[in-house]
Amino acid sequence: MPYRADQPKLLPCWQAHVTVGPMRDQGTGPSGQRLIIPITGGHFEGTLDPAGAARPFGGKVLPGGFDLQRLRPDGNKELEAIYHLETDDGTGIEIRNHALLTYSAPGVLDYGRSRICIEAPMGPYGWLNDRIFIGTLEPIRPFEEVLIRAFVVE
Amino acid sequence: MPYRADQPKLLPCWQAHVTVGPMRDQGTGPSGQRLIIPITGGHFEGTLDPAGAARPFGGKVLPGGFDLQRLRPDGNKELEAIYHLETDDGTGIEIRNHALLTYSAPGVLDYGRSRICIEAPMGPYGWLNDRIFIGTLEPIRPFEEVLIRAFVVE
Amino acid sequence: MPYRADQPKLLPCWQAHVTVGPMRDQGTGPSGQRLIIPITGGHFEGTLDPAGAARPFGGKVLPGGFDLQRLRPDGNKELEAIYHLETDDGTGIEIRNHALLTYSAPGVLDYGRSRICIEAPMGPYGWLNDRIFIGTLEPIRPFEEVLIRAFVVE
Amino acid sequence: MPYRADQPKLLPCWQAHVTVGPMRDQGTGPSGQRLIIPITGGHFEGTLDPAGAARPFGGKVLPGGFDLQRLRPDGNKELEAIYHLETDDGTGIEIRNHALLTYSAPGVLDYGRSRICIEAPMGPYGWLNDRIFIGTLEPIRPFEEVLIRAFVVE
Repeated sequence: MPYRADQPKLLPCWQAHVTVGPMRDQGTGPSGQRLIIPITGGHFEGTLDPAGAARPFGGKVLPGGFDLQRLRPDGNKELEAIYHLETDDGTGIEIRNHALLTYSAPGVLDYGRSRICIEAPMGPYGWLNDRIFIGTLEPIRPFEEVLIRAFVVE
Repeated sequence: MPYRADQPKLLPCWQAHVTVGPMRDQGTGPSGQRLIIPITGGHFEGTLDPAGAARPFGGKVLPGGFDLQRLRPDGNKELEAIYHLETDDGTGIEIRNHALLTYSAPGVLDYGRSRICIEAPMGPYGWLNDRIFIGTLEPIRPFEEVLIRAFVVE
Repeated sequence: MPYRADQPKLLPCWQAHVTVGPMRDQGTGPSGQRLIIPITGGHFEGTLDPAGAARPFGGKVLPGGFDLQRLRPDGNKELEAIYHLETDDGTGIEIRNHALLTYSAPGVLDYGRSRICIEAPMGPYGWLNDRIFIGTLEPIRPFEEVLIRAFVVE
Repeated sequence: MPYRADQPKLLPCWQAHVTVGPMRDQGTGPSGQRLIIPITGGHFEGTLDPAGAARPFGGKVLPGGFDLQRLRPDGNKELEAIYHLETDDGTGIEIRNHALLTYSAPGVLDYGRSRICIEAPMGPYGWLNDRIFIGTLEPIRPFEEVLIRAFVVE
């Protein structure tokens, strides 16, 4: 298929149910208030290369990551979640999810989209290094579980 | 409209015709071959907030930026274009466009998508700070002009 | 004292004894082999503003961070350790320590220095946001504890 | 010489006289006021590997870079200067200089130090990829020329 630049598409790639621990308020630094949310685990499932070979994959969200949040002076929130996935066959995959959240009223989410940077070892999951991904965020259980939907930009 | 996380959309936001100067080969560093492409000018036009107020905007690509390219050991190319737009009313906007290019054969582009990070002053263009953007790349005149299409993730 | 640019100095600022968990080998990605080392705890002590008010400070290294290592194709190692300190009075401080390690022979460290990026809340520890820091690394107990010495660039 | 971590030293490595063009005020974005200063040229000279082989090197500062400045809400200034050096034998070297400036009174510099990230091709200048560098800043001719002194952390 020849390369096309005029109509990029978003295709669902994976969903991660991420469980989180209690938030720590780090106070207000030179670029806004900082909040830290530990990532305690979870699971994910999806489809590699949905526009091509379309192979299923899934596994665990490893505990030990965190979501480093910044409340910007303009009221928007920037999230930087850093954590690792482990596939069912034991492969480790690094996730850095940079999200932007805006609110129409306190606590009422208006916008929540992200750039997902991913690094996988070469081999069965190497396709993940060859694409750009975006994500959405959805609280499933407040302060306990978040659903991250990841889409490949094709 | 209530927040939805299951069906993000890409809406066309702006197009930039970017003119470039002669490439400089910086040799091969610890993370691959480096190529520098000066950005010499251009123009852009589009629509701010296409899902909402939908206001037209446009202007110039300022000369003096560059595209810092890295040819990864796996054959893919990472681009980091840093430059500024100036709107018709004189507002400066910073662009950092991180692109990933893959090739099906030497010189035959298979994939070319990007994460566009943008920073605008608060005011008429402040909406640009409140969204996530992705881009596509298309050579218009080889080694002379590139078309960047930018899409907002809604 | 008037500003001087010709003879910057390194002054000891703090030392952190960081305990680590078992390393995970994440395989080889597009930029080299990735190794993850969980940060499990530790403690630190030192002096804030050693060229000025020289106030002592200290506390804990919080568990839940990690050291994201990359073995570059040229044999050097890049470390990106992300974790948090908590001072004795309960203030959270974010550390991002970007280190470069070179080896004269396998396992024989030749060079180990780092750039330490730090973010503290404004207030008693706000001085940390106003300086540039570098660090050194020293294994204390192999695979169990590392000593990080941090120096302010004055 | 065995590895030592307790007494890191700063050794002079190179000095760059960087000429700059007129500043552009980009207005105030979500993280503070943005100022852009074009880098128009200059020259540098110094010593590679001053603690070892101590070879002289020098050349030009290439026009076409810029210093992307941010005036933080706390009054400090963060600079991100991105430009290239070209050695006398035609080798291109990338510089990213992240500086922090504080002021004791408006316009009166109190502190000006930086982290210098550098990338050189492998070969005669490959040593630059194997070390951590810090810098100082000194205005030579206001709004026209800045002196950057770079020091290796040994």
